[in-house]
Amino acid sequence: MNVAVIGANGGIGRELVQRLADAGHDPIGVVRDEAQFETIRERGGEPRLGDLEGEFATALEGADAVVFTAGAGGDTGWDKTLMIDLWGARRTIDACVEQGIDRFVMISSIQASNPLAAPEAIRPYLVAKRSADDYLRSTGLEATIVRPTALTDDEGTGQISVAFEHRGEDGDDIPRADVAQTVVACLETAATTGETIRLFGGETPIEQAIIPDE
Amino acid sequence: MNVAVIGANGGIGRELVQRLADAGHDPIGVVRDEAQFETIRERGGEPRLGDLEGEFATALEGADAVVFTAGAGGDTGWDKTLMIDLWGARRTIDACVEQGIDRFVMISSIQASNPLAAPEAIRPYLVAKRSADDYLRSTGLEATIVRPTALTDDEGTGQISVAFEHRGEDGDDIPRADVAQTVVACLETAATTGETIRLFGGETPIEQAIIPDE
Repeated sequence: MNVAVIGANGGIGRELVQRLADAGHDPIGVVRDEAQFETIRERGGEPRLGDLEGEFATALEGADAVVFTAGAGGDTGWDKTLMIDLWGARRTIDACVEQGIDRFVMISSIQASNPLAAPEAIRPYLVAKRSADDYLRSTGLEATIVRPTALTDDEGTGQISVAFEHRGEDGDDIPRADVAQTVVACLETAATTGETIRLFGGETPIEQAIIPDE
Repeated sequence: MNVAVIGANGGIGRELVQRLADAGHDPIGVVRDEAQFETIRERGGEPRLGDLEGEFATALEGADAVVFTAGAGGDTGWDKTLMIDLWGARRTIDACVEQGIDRFVMISSIQASNPLAAPEAIRPYLVAKRSADDYLRSTGLEATIVRPTALTDDEGTGQISVAFEHRGEDGDDIPRADVAQTVVACLETAATTGETIRLFGGETPIEQAIIPDE
């Protein structure tokens, strides 16, 4: 599967490019800066330029699926949260609709279901993520929304814990590597289409954990 | 008509409460601070407390229609744009859906149709406004979206210029008083339901200008 990764140089993005290649897929690593091309190639991806605030149209060409894992990050202002996490996501979604790319995985966030219930410092971020998630659901795309809890840079374990419905928001932190592996598994599991999956560290093998309850 | 005005102490909100009362309606002025109650009363409105980031549920009780004209304004950070202009609008829309209040007028902004085409400094604001507008349209509410150009504090003229479709974004600045009067006219004109109206200063009487083209 040709999978375009938006935000391929981020913490989850780098892991994802590598794991897609390892699983026999053809990842397209979309980044903002040519200086990042070599890193993408080393991880088995085809690098492409795409600027979520500028030229972006050709970045998704030939993709069968798109994963959005770009984010303004904590070092920039909330204006960039609006421009990247929200508007950049919407531009990506719109491009998929226009280009007939049906399969979409959104990296969202725990607590996006209820931003006002979260600590005040992260509420604006959750508003942006939730709004992007809802916009995605308003399209006809075959979308899986993944909402991981707090992320770590620990090594992946291949095991997670998930919650499909409102069963509380608590759970162990999760390595970015396991989030990335979960995305690969979601892309390979049609049953996750239409699902919103809250994601924690855990002890269930990923491929088994992501199968929705009947 | 009982019309709840969210942001009743703002520039457009104050004009709107007065003009709704003058037209024989019963405005409910929703504000964040009891210190603003007397101003609302002086303008013929019933003051109510409503905090878009806190207690809000009862603010709309008994309303037949809601006008959203709250905004974080230019003196706060973009975090407040996310919390008020976007999430506050969504909370208001959700409350209308829950409470069966069908009629909604959103005060949006010119250029919300294409944020990336606007000057960089206002793009994040337009992303928030556009996302709120789209969320409103995703509901079943009978909504009119009003997108005024640059606002002035000049006296109202009773005359405007409008554009229903993509006929360019240029036009004269418009007094807040004329935006408020346009909202009153929209509430009284069922044909504006479902329309998104770009609004400029002009020379056509308001009641005539807002009738959509066939």
